Amino acid sequence: LVGAGPGDPDLLTRKAERLIATADIVFHDALVGPGVLALVPPSVELVSVGKRSGRHSKDQRTIDALIVEAALVGRRVVRLKGGDPSIFGRSSEELEACHAVHICPGITAASAAAADLGLSLTLRGTARRLTFVTAHTKRGGVPPLDWAALADPQATLAVYMGKAAAPHVSAGLIAAGLAPDTPVALVENASLPKGSQFRTRLDLLPIAAKTALGDGPALFLIGAAVAEPNASSSLETRERLSREDISSFAAH
Amino acid sequence: LVGAGPGDPDLLTRKAERLIATADIVFHDALVGPGVLALVPPSVELVSVGKRSGRHSKDQRTIDALIVEAALVGRRVVRLKGGDPSIFGRSSEELEACHAVHICPGITAASAAAADLGLSLTLRGTARRLTFVTAHTKRGGVPPLDWAALADPQATLAVYMGKAAAPHVSAGLIAAGLAPDTPVALVENASLPKGSQFRTRLDLLPIAAKTALGDGPALFLIGAAVAEPNASSSLETRERLSREDISSFAAH
Repeated sequence: LVGAGPGDPDLLTRKAERLIATADIVFHDALVGPGVLALVPPSVELVSVGKRSGRHSKDQRTIDALIVEAALVGRRVVRLKGGDPSIFGRSSEELEACHAVHICPGITAASAAAADLGLSLTLRGTARRLTFVTAHTKRGGVPPLDWAALADPQATLAVYMGKAAAPHVSAGLIAAGLAPDTPVALVENASLPKGSQFRTRLDLLPIAAKTALGDGPALFLIGAAVAEPNASSSLETRERLSREDISSFAAH
Repeated sequence: LVGAGPGDPDLLTRKAERLIATADIVFHDALVGPGVLALVPPSVELVSVGKRSGRHSKDQRTIDALIVEAALVGRRVVRLKGGDPSIFGRSSEELEACHAVHICPGITAASAAAADLGLSLTLRGTARRLTFVTAHTKRGGVPPLDWAALADPQATLAVYMGKAAAPHVSAGLIAAGLAPDTPVALVENASLPKGSQFRTRLDLLPIAAKTALGDGPALFLIGAAVAEPNASSSLETRERLSREDISSFAAH
């Protein structure tokens, strides 16, 4: 079970890169981007078992059966999942199906989004707690979230797969006491060249999610850490610099 | 600002590996392990600015000044931090000091600990929320944590740097209503060969932390996800298998 990270093939770990290069067969999600799949050598069998909300190309039982079957005949099986398999990776079913599993962690989308924005998700004193939730359920509805526990001005909240649930997230947090002007960042396609970041406030999140986001996987970051003076004031500078100066460095 | 991951040099991202290999100077923490530092080529200047609780080898201002100085003379500076720089990396001071910063994310300790334990930190239905807190403050005391918000049986709690604060964590969560028999995993030196994992229950956490843990960085994982039937029942099998069969695979 290997984490493919947020999308940028450069954010794959060295271990993940080696595991997919030496596998016999790789089962991958739809969220695993083309850049990562390009690292799979042509000699390795590549099977898409992609699930995207609403459209399930293969159901979980079929996936489990395929993986177990390949493992039982002695093939080196890699199950490649977007992000980190332990964080909203829906890995528990597959872990139950297979008893000899080695997990290789991946960069989760919240880390990648924070890096894209040039900010820290935790701030000593003002953002001591970091919470990840998903606003997406198996059936497409909004999961019952404990808004009171989430509405903490001293915490940073990362909402995975929240696009459709943006109105519920905004209304729920505000009703539970979080200030309407709490800073929010929306990050789509974190880590990828086509990635985009938008800043708004909690009460405007539903509009921003509707108008600014496309079809890519999106994440919301909510809380004071998002408005860190440095992050907001120098983001443009940093973006410009990262394009001009730093990209040449990073491209080495 | 580059995340070095949890310790295993194989859990460095491909990008981080390239950045440290092409830097002119690398400033690193004490938490960045020798395996990762071994990837820094001899031609790159390596400066330890390590901080470990109580013993600060260099204060933050000195570190900032050194980094800014090196950057101003046009050197390619990498500030290498253990884990992910955006999660309890205390990065905001350094981000403020330097305005043209590129962040390369890293695997955070909670992801690595979950991988070591072979479990998922989130479970559909039963562990929908994942929260990271640190139980360590600048001055060595216990930070004021909102135990009521943290004591959610439907959430997984990862406590970073909690060894000294184990009695407070246990008492705080139980007083706020979390069951005394809530499963807890203690992970020390996540991802490393010398890493160790222990399982206990919330009321026994203080004793476990005192008797089982050594001097390495430790993380507590608290909640139902830790006791996932698969995780607990097959952990031994998996550990054995990972030593015998899977390690040969992973070593490729």
